Amino acid sequence: MSLLVVGSVAFDSIQTPTQTRERILGGSATYFSYAASFFAPVRLVGVVGEDFPAEHTALLKSRNIDTSGLHVIPGGKTFFWKGKYLPNMNDRETLEIELNVFGDFRPKLPDAFRRSEFIFLANGSPVTQMSVLEQATGPRLVVADTMDLWIRTQHGELMALLKRIDGLVMNDSEAKLLTDDENLVTAGHKILKLGPRFVVIKKGEHGAMFFSEHETYVLPAFPTERVIDPTGAGDSFAGGLMGYLASRGNFEPQTLKEAMAYGILVASFTVEDFSLDRLRRITKGDLDLRMERYRKMLSF
Amino acid sequence: MSLLVVGSVAFDSIQTPTQTRERILGGSATYFSYAASFFAPVRLVGVVGEDFPAEHTALLKSRNIDTSGLHVIPGGKTFFWKGKYLPNMNDRETLEIELNVFGDFRPKLPDAFRRSEFIFLANGSPVTQMSVLEQATGPRLVVADTMDLWIRTQHGELMALLKRIDGLVMNDSEAKLLTDDENLVTAGHKILKLGPRFVVIKKGEHGAMFFSEHETYVLPAFPTERVIDPTGAGDSFAGGLMGYLASRGNFEPQTLKEAMAYGILVASFTVEDFSLDRLRRITKGDLDLRMERYRKMLSF
Repeated sequence: MSLLVVGSVAFDSIQTPTQTRERILGGSATYFSYAASFFAPVRLVGVVGEDFPAEHTALLKSRNIDTSGLHVIPGGKTFFWKGKYLPNMNDRETLEIELNVFGDFRPKLPDAFRRSEFIFLANGSPVTQMSVLEQATGPRLVVADTMDLWIRTQHGELMALLKRIDGLVMNDSEAKLLTDDENLVTAGHKILKLGPRFVVIKKGEHGAMFFSEHETYVLPAFPTERVIDPTGAGDSFAGGLMGYLASRGNFEPQTLKEAMAYGILVASFTVEDFSLDRLRRITKGDLDLRMERYRKMLSF
Repeated sequence: MSLLVVGSVAFDSIQTPTQTRERILGGSATYFSYAASFFAPVRLVGVVGEDFPAEHTALLKSRNIDTSGLHVIPGGKTFFWKGKYLPNMNDRETLEIELNVFGDFRPKLPDAFRRSEFIFLANGSPVTQMSVLEQATGPRLVVADTMDLWIRTQHGELMALLKRIDGLVMNDSEAKLLTDDENLVTAGHKILKLGPRFVVIKKGEHGAMFFSEHETYVLPAFPTERVIDPTGAGDSFAGGLMGYLASRGNFEPQTLKEAMAYGILVASFTVEDFSLDRLRRITKGDLDLRMERYRKMLSF
């Protein structure tokens, strides 16, 4: 089934306790698309400046990612983020941020994209996310990400969005902020009452939780010794999840749980190197092999 | 098989964000014993003062816990701890601590306890823990807990102990401290090199990790909305784990994984009320029911 993502495409400069990288390929829609492309073709809507190298676009295209919705603004500069990870490789500080062309991002879906069956609204203002929904025609499944900024500054708009989407994906601190509840299980159930039919709370190195009317579960992260750069883990998770759902063409409980697991596993590869470097070196077969180990790990 | 625990028996005064309790039954050996007693008889070695109510001892005895190693010091006062949980219900502050008779605790195993096959050395100084081992005759499995205090102040003694035990159980921050490594997977492997044949790293609400030469895995905590008091969760986990192993009489990889799961589930009940209050209201059948739900949660 067709899968659409709307989000950021960016340059990231990243400092970890042991290494630094300058202006490498990043952005929520980038990680999402590449992760999803292991399972299904992807339609990407985003915006970049004239400084965005053709090789990056070519890389995405080579993965069956349709970049006809990636707008290039003449004379514009691509969204830039510079961040630093603390020694625990979990907390991070933003050192610099230049929204550039992303600051005026008003996503416009190409006609061919309007009828996408699965839609992922990567992190963005709820107003922007809503504007995408208004251009879409009868999607079967809409999932959105959000963040602390929008919870704080566009609360009403976010509440309106939550009534329009099927699934919400967010991280643990954001779920606590949104619900003012420190218990993630309670928080998950509270968010369900705000509209979405399912909620996924990402816990970074601790895995992810799933909530729907009839189900509550948590799946652990895949334990990896090689954590080089956690950037993009959450978007890769979402990409693996949505890509798998699109490939299966349904979102039954059993399919959703498998999708959660694939999301966790794609993310476990993403963090093993900077940018898309690790994902570029693996195949679907590597994901399936890790899935086999993951299933074995969880069975007793 | 026979199971021995040596550790603290205490009074706890506890403040959570919503409730407080004064001088309730606590202590590592208390939680351990009660948790283990769902699976196997337990031999307890500890020390209390004359102020320790007979009803507490009677409670333990009613669970097939042999308290003949629980020394009562005439005129002495029982170990007392007062603590306060922060709103996240994970971090806590010690407000008051009175070691009392526990300060002079020199565990002496009753003759009948020396030949115990499974031994758990609850948190205590590595010197005290070693003194227990010196009184034991040919145990089949020795597992110890430790804490930041001993890692910092009795490092050499702890290193000597690690060479004498089969398994080490500790929490995540302690594993990081011991290895100076922020990645728990790397930390687990480093600790294996210090002596133990297996290492368990407890992650509180995020579950527990297991490491041996051939295996690395993580099992999530059982998601519960009702977190009333996390005190004793770690010791209950260890009790469930060791109790199950003792009941099975082996520590094969498959048995160990089942034991990890039972440990996680007993702990998930412990946190649902103060002291032993929740554990006192459940049966082995409730544990098995939760195990069924846990297995289902982890299968897809």
